[in-house]
Amino acid sequence: MRILGIDPGLRTLGWGVIEADGGRIGHLANGLCHGAGETLAERLLALYRGLRVVIETHAPDCAAIEQTFVNRDGAGSLKLGQARGVALLAAAESRLPVGEYAPNTVKKTIVGTGHAAKRQIDHMVRLQLPGVQIAGPDAADALAVALCHAHHGKAGARLAAALARAGAR
Amino acid sequence: MRILGIDPGLRTLGWGVIEADGGRIGHLANGLCHGAGETLAERLLALYRGLRVVIETHAPDCAAIEQTFVNRDGAGSLKLGQARGVALLAAAESRLPVGEYAPNTVKKTIVGTGHAAKRQIDHMVRLQLPGVQIAGPDAADALAVALCHAHHGKAGARLAAALARAGAR
Repeated sequence: MRILGIDPGLRTLGWGVIEADGGRIGHLANGLCHGAGETLAERLLALYRGLRVVIETHAPDCAAIEQTFVNRDGAGSLKLGQARGVALLAAAESRLPVGEYAPNTVKKTIVGTGHAAKRQIDHMVRLQLPGVQIAGPDAADALAVALCHAHHGKAGARLAAALARAGAR
Repeated sequence: MRILGIDPGLRTLGWGVIEADGGRIGHLANGLCHGAGETLAERLLALYRGLRVVIETHAPDCAAIEQTFVNRDGAGSLKLGQARGVALLAAAESRLPVGEYAPNTVKKTIVGTGHAAKRQIDHMVRLQLPGVQIAGPDAADALAVALCHAHHGKAGARLAAALARAGAR
């Protein structure tokens, strides 16, 4: 299963594609899409088109994105929401099912604790994908959510298999 | 000039198209796009496709949208941001310049005061577009921001003409 992880942002959108094959996980590509343009609409269009190219190039089977941490910074939530909206749209247009994970779930899955620092996540992503060149912190975050999806997908598959075995008894 | 007003929302996106020809303003169409779907991504895709059909059908020259009122409701800002993002994207894909207006500017332009109630706006929209069937409150808000854009565009055109005359003296 090929997973596209997305870390949305209006200036920079991080993305990472991994291949999860049973217990093995391999890195395919990662990078950044830049929200270039003079107006907000142009910036959103640049992000959207960049992500469409990523999806067309790497043909993922599914996507994963963090559930957004909502805080009292309404302006920040609105900006992030706009970028997140076009990212989800790009995935939906290619009929990719989208897994959404709370930030704490991503941290807990990757680092083992829900209160990990950003550099710990970066470290653990590099440990799980040795030798990989990472385009930047946003791309590392995108790979983290893709890895999270791979682990949860595997757990989900194990659970389904166990239930099937239990049902067969 | 044909103006598309947009009132974004994740459940319902209101839209309205008017024709502003010098001092005359005529109504062309208004309606609602529904964010139908099981997942957030599907709902955003439904809104986006709905708005794309509106743009293709009515071929506006420009779009107008409210600047979002940012409050402490981070979850609300995020939801609205996602819907607003795909609306701006739909406009940008058709190269429509987008005018953004603060809610108070829309109210002041339509009703004459920045603190007008929603039903006052609805009333004044109906007064300026007599006999028009309005699809709902979100469509009325969309027509209001389109009317606001028409009035400001006219003022802008008058200013440009005055400056041109002043320059010609």
